[in-house]
Amino acid sequence: MVNKRFATALHILSALAYHEEQTPLNSDLLSQSINTNPVVVRRILKKLTQGGIVQTQRGKHGGVRLAKKPSSIKLGEIYDCLHSRHLISMNEKPPKKDCKVSCSMGKIMEVLSVGVEKSVKDYLNRQSLCDVVKKI
Amino acid sequence: MVNKRFATALHILSALAYHEEQTPLNSDLLSQSINTNPVVVRRILKKLTQGGIVQTQRGKHGGVRLAKKPSSIKLGEIYDCLHSRHLISMNEKPPKKDCKVSCSMGKIMEVLSVGVEKSVKDYLNRQSLCDVVKKI
Repeated sequence: MVNKRFATALHILSALAYHEEQTPLNSDLLSQSINTNPVVVRRILKKLTQGGIVQTQRGKHGGVRLAKKPSSIKLGEIYDCLHSRHLISMNEKPPKKDCKVSCSMGKIMEVLSVGVEKSVKDYLNRQSLCDVVKKI
Repeated sequence: MVNKRFATALHILSALAYHEEQTPLNSDLLSQSINTNPVVVRRILKKLTQGGIVQTQRGKHGGVRLAKKPSSIKLGEIYDCLHSRHLISMNEKPPKKDCKVSCSMGKIMEVLSVGVEKSVKDYLNRQSLCDVVKKI
């Protein structure tokens, strides 16, 4: 599950896009806007940096900036940076070998789980960070 | 999140559909096939009964049966019976009143969260329990 990480990441990126022309924001300012702990923000910023969506400038006037234009950041890309587990999970216990249903469910659920992820990604990829910021 | 409940529910319903012509199954037999606790199975059966997908016959030859044909049970209907929380959650903390980004994020995330649910439901509703059973 993505938990609230997607909401927090989208909040961070929306703030960065909205204040794009100004001094870079930092995790303290961002955490105030989100009303969360700066540690949570830094943890997500790390993932967004690894995913090439934001970049950090060090130094006195440093902070966080978007690494590319809001119009070229698709929401599915943000989702990809954050999640590790599939939204619909599988039964991890071994199947009962003499039960045909039990032996088939792993493969059936795997296909469904991948299909669910694809549906979510396709939906999110139809929207960019630019579309989100227009609603602020 | 649906957790593993969707996988367990689909396993239960697939077993019921696969053995449709035989004696009704019960939660003990179903839990053996799933390799889980009968309590877990009974909890999910309760939800599926409330959702009108299965029905319970009491008595010596009693057990659980599908309440309708596998071809008319869409996977989205099963999903609906089980889940309570949205797959993508919102930040529940109050927004920072003097921050325009913070004040807009609740509505933005609500729309996205509903969109994600709809994508998942649309995908699942394109498949029936009958389609699943054909793969066993």
